[in-house]
Amino acid sequence: MRLSARNQLTGTVTAIDEGVVTTTVKIELAGGQTITSSITKEAATELGIEVGKEVTAIVKASSVMLAVD
Amino acid sequence: MRLSARNQLTGTVTAIDEGVVTTTVKIELAGGQTITSSITKEAATELGIEVGKEVTAIVKASSVMLAVD
Amino acid sequence: MRLSARNQLTGTVTAIDEGVVTTTVKIELAGGQTITSSITKEAATELGIEVGKEVTAIVKASSVMLAVD
Amino acid sequence: MRLSARNQLTGTVTAIDEGVVTTTVKIELAGGQTITSSITKEAATELGIEVGKEVTAIVKASSVMLAVD
Amino acid sequence: MRLSARNQLTGTVTAIDEGVVTTTVKIELAGGQTITSSITKEAATELGIEVGKEVTAIVKASSVMLAVD
Amino acid sequence: MRLSARNQLTGTVTAIDEGVVTTTVKIELAGGQTITSSITKEAATELGIEVGKEVTAIVKASSVMLAVD
Repeated sequence: MRLSARNQLTGTVTAIDEGVVTTTVKIELAGGQTITSSITKEAATELGIEVGKEVTAIVKASSVMLAVD
Repeated sequence: MRLSARNQLTGTVTAIDEGVVTTTVKIELAGGQTITSSITKEAATELGIEVGKEVTAIVKASSVMLAVD
Repeated sequence: MRLSARNQLTGTVTAIDEGVVTTTVKIELAGGQTITSSITKEAATELGIEVGKEVTAIVKASSVMLAVD
Repeated sequence: MRLSARNQLTGTVTAIDEGVVTTTVKIELAGGQTITSSITKEAATELGIEVGKEVTAIVKASSVMLAVD
Repeated sequence: MRLSARNQLTGTVTAIDEGVVTTTVKIELAGGQTITSSITKEAATELGIEVGKEVTAIVKASSVMLAVD
Repeated sequence: MRLSARNQLTGTVTAIDEGVVTTTVKIELAGGQTITSSITKEAATELGIEVGKEVTAIVKASSVMLAVD
């Protein structure tokens, strides 16, 4: 499957914070930065999200804001 | 200024694609990955976005989807 | 590849409206409804988006608003 | 009220998963597909969201990603 | 029609910047602040968006980020 | 820090609804309107979000939908 989303960053799950319907997942990227994702708990269970698993963080370009100093 | 957005990734602008009202900006992160952002042309001008400039790509956790193989 | 996004709707491209950096794509779903997607022109080209092509429209649950009469 | 959002899909609520502040709602569309929406619990209560209720799922075109095989 | 979106801010259109497929609209709110919206050009035409028109800017709570000094 | 987001609305926190991983924050703007934001509980704690605190609500133009009567 190929995606239109311009941002596809692969990394490893380092932490999971499970809510009642939402789960927050932290992913360490190859470059050492951390990405945080909020997905439904249903999706986290379905995808077998667990610490140590390799995942890809996917973000549409239109969801990325820029900042400058 | 501190932001609630969990994802704040610093990098350097490597390419700019300017539309009539939207500008797409490519940013190379420290780890070598590329992030693409779509912002208004007005914002790109206001922030002085140009190739070589250091910027921070900001993404809410709720905008980050996950994929697994 | 399996995605965390809860909404994955398959259909056929029926119209494409190409901007300078953004392309709008209309997709007819199996049930006859139409979905409109805005993606970067780069992505539309890369994915070979053309009228008649089968695609999947992907939306995070957190991007779906509800209305009632 | 008319909305700028290009995606307005009508269906019936089939399931509700209530969190502490977020509620996830599943909607069956006319064509048989299912759409999942995450809204605030406050909104779900205010709109009287319950199984069997007819609702419209609303999504901006810019929130719709595409995938091809 | 009642919406789940928690943010519904009424104001008057003060400026329109029309791209090839995307239109950016500036709205002055009752309190004097300005809100900017990017919608498809198709939607702007369909809704008859023009300077002086009263509109409501609608934003999901999950799209609102916070900043503190 | 300057942001590309076109919508930066300052106000005062009037209510906080804390979930397990998500926190909903209500902000009263200068003009008297209320903005609701959903952020991660982690972010709310990190930013010291509490009733009476001055914050800025930040929204990308592409997340703002329009409605007309």
